[in-house]
Amino acid sequence: MPALRPQAVAARLKAVFLDVGNTLVRDVGFTRKLAEKISTALHIVAGLRVDQESVLEAWAELNEWAEDDVELWDFARVMLLARKLGLTPSVKLAELLYAAVLEAYLEGFEVEPAAPKVVQELKEMGLRVGLLTNVGSYDVVKLRVQKAGMLDHLEVVVASQAFSWRKPSRRIFEVACFLAGVEPKEALHVGDDPQADIAGAKAAGLRAVQVLKYAPEKSPLADAWIYSIEELPGVVREIMSS
Amino acid sequence: MPALRPQAVAARLKAVFLDVGNTLVRDVGFTRKLAEKISTALHIVAGLRVDQESVLEAWAELNEWAEDDVELWDFARVMLLARKLGLTPSVKLAELLYAAVLEAYLEGFEVEPAAPKVVQELKEMGLRVGLLTNVGSYDVVKLRVQKAGMLDHLEVVVASQAFSWRKPSRRIFEVACFLAGVEPKEALHVGDDPQADIAGAKAAGLRAVQVLKYAPEKSPLADAWIYSIEELPGVVREIMSS
Repeated sequence: MPALRPQAVAARLKAVFLDVGNTLVRDVGFTRKLAEKISTALHIVAGLRVDQESVLEAWAELNEWAEDDVELWDFARVMLLARKLGLTPSVKLAELLYAAVLEAYLEGFEVEPAAPKVVQELKEMGLRVGLLTNVGSYDVVKLRVQKAGMLDHLEVVVASQAFSWRKPSRRIFEVACFLAGVEPKEALHVGDDPQADIAGAKAAGLRAVQVLKYAPEKSPLADAWIYSIEELPGVVREIMSS
Repeated sequence: MPALRPQAVAARLKAVFLDVGNTLVRDVGFTRKLAEKISTALHIVAGLRVDQESVLEAWAELNEWAEDDVELWDFARVMLLARKLGLTPSVKLAELLYAAVLEAYLEGFEVEPAAPKVVQELKEMGLRVGLLTNVGSYDVVKLRVQKAGMLDHLEVVVASQAFSWRKPSRRIFEVACFLAGVEPKEALHVGDDPQADIAGAKAAGLRAVQVLKYAPEKSPLADAWIYSIEELPGVVREIMSS
């Protein structure tokens, strides 16, 4: 009797989780937009002139308040930023700065043209499709999903800010599986980042496909690699029939 | 030369942080409202009949997903709740359940009649006044503050959900002081809970006043005790002149 190949004993695939940044959307100048929007908001709202480079420096320094594996909400970030620049981070000021950050996200990233069709195809294959993303604001993912017409096709939207934990933390993968009603071995995670997306998913017991288009490096841990998201349905079909 | 009394070396008081639950607001049946609103929402939105006791049981069980010192956002809670009850926690369902939770908070607690006046008096004494509260949703604090007309009088609103850390964690007290632009020794925290409010504040280097009206027990660590929030300006005046 021949030994079973690993593929033959793999559990049936029931759910696919998609990363957002550099997987479903591509960066078209987020950092520049962020600096521009915050700098403008500070000027209009608070009469403060802070050049864009200083905004980005102060923004980067806020990471000293962040913890490994725990997401810091952008709304908290803008309060910390205001104080760093000598302003009182009142509710009103924080809300205006937060709106600037959301705008920067929405203008600074573009949905990959194939994304909505890919989500729909995966659904038609009988899979539960969700988003699983590290992000400073759930709001931005929700707005993005709505704008791209994907809202009704997604079973779950798991944004790190909503749960606090970040990928590669095992807990955020466990949350996503629980919410989709599947076991980790029945789920596939799709993303670009070798650590957060691939190593994280594999360590939590999910399968993982790496999208290489904007990936910093290829992960040897992935179950499959694709260049871009439009190749996903084909690879998923192969995984399902193997 | 006489030894300096501790009071004489205490730093000048510059900021006062107020706890919300059982300090600025009192519970007028939150748990019952929560069960009622969620049960109704589940019936209307998802056609699911879940009695109020079962809602509360499921809600309490969600704490297994929470971590010590880290707040779990109510929006995450309602997604977990939906799945626990066998529903797909889509964005739309989660938002409707979240709205039910916010309503329960707003109807289930009442602002202490003296609260807005107390905040104004403290401001007039030249103090920076902020809120520092453990809460599952920043949104509810913001709505509450607006409704009570206190929005313009508050320098900062520090809700645990926005920063992830919860009282008595030292980090949330440090955040509040940083945002208000003061040192811990220049700040006073006012709250009911012996652990979260009093032990937490003192461990972080702040002064602490305990409000006893709804407190589970008196803390020996407090610098002063008041029965109700309307006594606060008087006690703060004493602390400032000592």
